[in-house]
Amino acid sequence: MKLTGMVKAEEVKLNEVAKPTLQASDDVILHIVRACVCGSDLWNYRGIDHVAEGHNSGHEAIAIVEEVGDDITTVKPGDFVIAPFTHGCGHCAACINGFDGGCLNHQDNFSNDAQAEYMRYQHAQWSLIKVPGQPGDYSEGMLKSLLTLSDVMPTGYHAAKTADVKRGDKVVVVGDGAVGLCAVLSAKMLGAAQIIIMSRHEDRQKLAREFGATDVVADRGESGIKQVLDLTGGTGADAVLECVGAESSTAQAMAVVRPGGTIGRVGLPHMANMNPAESFYRNVKIAGGPASVTTYVKGGLLKAVLDGQINPGKVFTKTFALDDVDAAYQAMDKRETIKSYLVVSD
Amino acid sequence: MKLTGMVKAEEVKLNEVAKPTLQASDDVILHIVRACVCGSDLWNYRGIDHVAEGHNSGHEAIAIVEEVGDDITTVKPGDFVIAPFTHGCGHCAACINGFDGGCLNHQDNFSNDAQAEYMRYQHAQWSLIKVPGQPGDYSEGMLKSLLTLSDVMPTGYHAAKTADVKRGDKVVVVGDGAVGLCAVLSAKMLGAAQIIIMSRHEDRQKLAREFGATDVVADRGESGIKQVLDLTGGTGADAVLECVGAESSTAQAMAVVRPGGTIGRVGLPHMANMNPAESFYRNVKIAGGPASVTTYVKGGLLKAVLDGQINPGKVFTKTFALDDVDAAYQAMDKRETIKSYLVVSD
Repeated sequence: MKLTGMVKAEEVKLNEVAKPTLQASDDVILHIVRACVCGSDLWNYRGIDHVAEGHNSGHEAIAIVEEVGDDITTVKPGDFVIAPFTHGCGHCAACINGFDGGCLNHQDNFSNDAQAEYMRYQHAQWSLIKVPGQPGDYSEGMLKSLLTLSDVMPTGYHAAKTADVKRGDKVVVVGDGAVGLCAVLSAKMLGAAQIIIMSRHEDRQKLAREFGATDVVADRGESGIKQVLDLTGGTGADAVLECVGAESSTAQAMAVVRPGGTIGRVGLPHMANMNPAESFYRNVKIAGGPASVTTYVKGGLLKAVLDGQINPGKVFTKTFALDDVDAAYQAMDKRETIKSYLVVSD
Repeated sequence: MKLTGMVKAEEVKLNEVAKPTLQASDDVILHIVRACVCGSDLWNYRGIDHVAEGHNSGHEAIAIVEEVGDDITTVKPGDFVIAPFTHGCGHCAACINGFDGGCLNHQDNFSNDAQAEYMRYQHAQWSLIKVPGQPGDYSEGMLKSLLTLSDVMPTGYHAAKTADVKRGDKVVVVGDGAVGLCAVLSAKMLGAAQIIIMSRHEDRQKLAREFGATDVVADRGESGIKQVLDLTGGTGADAVLECVGAESSTAQAMAVVRPGGTIGRVGLPHMANMNPAESFYRNVKIAGGPASVTTYVKGGLLKAVLDGQINPGKVFTKTFALDDVDAAYQAMDKRETIKSYLVVSD
């Protein structure tokens, strides 16, 4: 079968590999229907994070269950499922408290190898999410929105939830990638009164407004900070959703949050350290981490998508066949698309 | 008048200085009744933080109003007051949101020079807290509890509030100084089901149990962490109240919080940096900062003290005359007392 693999910085290709097999009693083998490229995959693609040749960090998919391990009772072959990038057990102290992204029972809590024809999905019993019907029952637009439920939509929602966004809040979203845009949508769902997105790209600004952004700030650095402070009455936002993870975006987030406000971080931290005194003296709360995908999707996001209440699939602005996966990476790398959608099978 | 001043590391003495005068229209001159020594004063006394000769970081007092600036309408000469170490305005975005420790209108938001006969109290209009009657109406025990309301009791309460302690929570308190003990009392007030204090000193362990601690862990490092994890069913605490601010205590706090749990920090950070990835991957929330003294005291802590619901004054286990201020510092430095109480005037 075909599996995407890193060749070197700025290049991935499809390799022919053996179809994965069940290796544990709680494994499920998935036949991938749709997959995609994540902003976090670009850390590897751009050579910022170093990974071995052949590695694939793809971790977003909707799929058909092909085969199940002996302990699996929640899904059966032929079921249509969302495959979260997290693999919570559902019953440890982390999962019970709604943080399946930090499941205490699974060291191997994150997916890989999803940009492929088949994948081995570990610890599937609680974490996989069944979707009613079959892929053919849904429009391509609905499939796109269902695919966002494997990562970017719950991740954006996690930024808003951990930043404790409440009705009437002033919210700033740092990052205009798919996660940032889903964070806008989430802040809107949670009742934010003002949602300012920091974005320099016209296509993303447009979608952000469609998703609920009330203001767009294109400048960064001192000028961008000043504009956000002006927009929030001089004081900064109640909640800042940090959807990048870079040193500059984190500094930006810290500069626009009000005293006692909260930063919800969902971008993988790519920085040396944080100054513990800066947040302390301003009573800024720093929250967030890997999203609670299964918790949120089962808890309401799947229903919100199926009901048409939200349409996060709009972040996919270019579609590629799996055979063209390098072009899919390139388009995201060059910001020719917000997020690249991969059609794998019918 | 007499004012405590730093001589050099391990030595303070009383200096004869001019009585302070009103310098701004929102100043109040206070005649100090009782003052005390704070754990944070020891950072200076021990030479860890360097301050100029003659400097006094004392910032806790109950007092009689001696004189008021033209803009002061909330207190008048002769009133008995608690003098918070923070000086919120009461109406900026920080104060309105309950974070007067980070008041946006007052750069000079923290007290100094309280270990003295008189002090100039800045920005007094909203921040000073009136106490019914006169000092002579109260027992010495009640005066002690009222004095804790200028800092350590609301600071301990801030640790518990920012760590979001809720009914039924498992809580760990790191630090067994006066703030740590007040944090135990606060966790109890907020309904915590389990309160574990990390303490190596018998007098503090005893008072912690009286204040509501259910368990005491004397060991630190790996052994202390293991004991806390065992006590919390292997998973760590919902909330950790970090009441020291040192690198080792912060590491201890991080090691005993469950995934998705919160660390409420109230110890002034004395460390180089925090690893942003450690808290991220475990979804640990880092909150806290300078306490919301006026907010909490007016909001209920004063009533709780006056009603006898709480008796935080028990943290004062040795009493000194202001003339013996160096002995008061020494006793705290050598841990011969939990907190040193200074009798300044009747």
